[in-house]
Amino acid sequence: MSLLSLSCPVTFLSCPEFINWFMATKFIIGVMGPGETATPRENELAFELGKAIAREGWITLSGGRAFGVMNAVMEGAVLQGGLTIGVLPGDDEQGSSPHAAIKIVTGMGGARNLINVLSSHVLVVCGMAAGTASEVALAIKADKRIIMLDPDDVSEEFFRKIGSYKVSVAKTVKEAVSMIKNFLSVYG
Amino acid sequence: MSLLSLSCPVTFLSCPEFINWFMATKFIIGVMGPGETATPRENELAFELGKAIAREGWITLSGGRAFGVMNAVMEGAVLQGGLTIGVLPGDDEQGSSPHAAIKIVTGMGGARNLINVLSSHVLVVCGMAAGTASEVALAIKADKRIIMLDPDDVSEEFFRKIGSYKVSVAKTVKEAVSMIKNFLSVYG
Amino acid sequence: MSLLSLSCPVTFLSCPEFINWFMATKFIIGVMGPGETATPRENELAFELGKAIAREGWITLSGGRAFGVMNAVMEGAVLQGGLTIGVLPGDDEQGSSPHAAIKIVTGMGGARNLINVLSSHVLVVCGMAAGTASEVALAIKADKRIIMLDPDDVSEEFFRKIGSYKVSVAKTVKEAVSMIKNFLSVYG
Amino acid sequence: MSLLSLSCPVTFLSCPEFINWFMATKFIIGVMGPGETATPRENELAFELGKAIAREGWITLSGGRAFGVMNAVMEGAVLQGGLTIGVLPGDDEQGSSPHAAIKIVTGMGGARNLINVLSSHVLVVCGMAAGTASEVALAIKADKRIIMLDPDDVSEEFFRKIGSYKVSVAKTVKEAVSMIKNFLSVYG
Repeated sequence: MSLLSLSCPVTFLSCPEFINWFMATKFIIGVMGPGETATPRENELAFELGKAIAREGWITLSGGRAFGVMNAVMEGAVLQGGLTIGVLPGDDEQGSSPHAAIKIVTGMGGARNLINVLSSHVLVVCGMAAGTASEVALAIKADKRIIMLDPDDVSEEFFRKIGSYKVSVAKTVKEAVSMIKNFLSVYG
Repeated sequence: MSLLSLSCPVTFLSCPEFINWFMATKFIIGVMGPGETATPRENELAFELGKAIAREGWITLSGGRAFGVMNAVMEGAVLQGGLTIGVLPGDDEQGSSPHAAIKIVTGMGGARNLINVLSSHVLVVCGMAAGTASEVALAIKADKRIIMLDPDDVSEEFFRKIGSYKVSVAKTVKEAVSMIKNFLSVYG
Repeated sequence: MSLLSLSCPVTFLSCPEFINWFMATKFIIGVMGPGETATPRENELAFELGKAIAREGWITLSGGRAFGVMNAVMEGAVLQGGLTIGVLPGDDEQGSSPHAAIKIVTGMGGARNLINVLSSHVLVVCGMAAGTASEVALAIKADKRIIMLDPDDVSEEFFRKIGSYKVSVAKTVKEAVSMIKNFLSVYG
Repeated sequence: MSLLSLSCPVTFLSCPEFINWFMATKFIIGVMGPGETATPRENELAFELGKAIAREGWITLSGGRAFGVMNAVMEGAVLQGGLTIGVLPGDDEQGSSPHAAIKIVTGMGGARNLINVLSSHVLVVCGMAAGTASEVALAIKADKRIIMLDPDDVSEEFFRKIGSYKVSVAKTVKEAVSMIKNFLSVYG
């Protein structure tokens, strides 16, 4: 059974909006943040963000593991019926979040951080840790737009310094979504 | 709009098979083969294979570029309403197949061949070239099951020798699909 | 001609310190910093650092390109007779520093930053830019010791925050070398 | 102490051939072959090859692990006073050959095979296994010259087919060295 045929093909094929959605450019929003060291507040924000991303019809991409921000954002997205991609560091699916619908298995450890960055049309950062910092830095290098969601002062100051106009700050999920829309508009 | 809300949310949410499909383990079938040097027959076979993969509800993964087997298999899959993933070697989406619904941008050149292999539950090979050979070899190393679709004698003999039981040969797309089903059954 | 035979084999073979040096654990010091955007002062510091590293018998590793800190540190090292390794992002040696004695060609773009980090026993950072920041972050993640050479306040505060004890600050090349010695002592 | 100063600086600095050697383009010969599954004969051939490479003043590069062809070729090279580079798949030096003078730690698993290929000016293959086959295939793709040392018929036929003029066959180490010289001459 394909996505369009299943046992209810008529329903799907008679819904042109679905076909259009499916064939349209699908924007990927990468969400980065701490793993084991994520705070409850960061996980909560990520969860809300995931729901908001899915509500917009965008795909959520994260580091794909079963804890912290990467897990929380995909959990929120799936709950809202969104598509999720987890880009995993290991050699197999072990340790991956149950909320990653599509698992990209890289076998490249921290080098997969570059893939997260390059595959995302816009990045949102929720919390800060070493892995997260490497992703923000690579995103600046790759000329991507990065939104820091309610960042601490030290991280904001540092990344604004090295990223200048590429780094924006949003205080709320709602503000972040509105910024994403704005940045995506360049893709026409 | 999310996948489930769009402008026809009732239709989708009232279709439990869709929800089940969406939340179920999604199998990824990697299809490898020549790019510029693919023969018309190889492209045709890949196109038929893509349609057959989509019909089964599996996701099609390929090298993602706009020509050869990787393009043909995704074109077939999309035509049948299937989901397609293109794992791209370059730094951006340039040169990617229009039939890649999800574009994973690796920026890692030929090293992305490992990602193709590790992210696929089963691999099908259609034609032979240097890049393709590296993928089959990496797949054997990673202990994946590989199906060679109507291979030439020299390639078949070589990969059977270094891959033993991991390498199977299918004469037709239909036979390949039946082998894939068999191999996927180990994932429960 | 091998390193030991050349046209003056007796000289080399009669110098047991050389043989000992050659077979001993060779420590690799990774030096990271801005490329095109490096200031004259940063390049000068890197040049002095390269000379100092070579004087200690350590190998200098950098990103290998022909400008900025990576070029300056290798130029200094070579001038002092030191061995240099350039880990290049591209597919070939094009654009590599003439002072890279050994060129590791990765073809992996920014993902090669991880290799710089993992291959170095200690890292020294001279100046700051997006690529540099990704390397410091990956080094913290990989549990390496990092020395920031005369950093700006914002960068120092940020990396001390996410790296805690792994990040040290040296005001001069001399102080950096003394810290490296200290950190290398754990390798016995 | 630097390579040139040690405790016998006069000896080294008074040997202009050494300085010349050290500053000259250093050719890197990549040697690929089976790990655990290498036969005694393959290890022996690799050991002889390593000695011969070192005798020519070339650097030996291999996969860097502590067994099979990669270990044997570096053991031979070191015995002859040659410089050796091991490009390791893991996150640290664990499991590396004691004969790897320089250890490049990639943390990228099988993706490091591409680095082996791109960093070598010429490749020699000794025996065949899945990892080895991926390297030969990537080398063909990267337009490198590959010498198969006493290959089995099936492997020879396959790689000649996909690599055409890029793949040569040598029956002995001596013949391989003479071919390498020939191929290196294009680098001027």
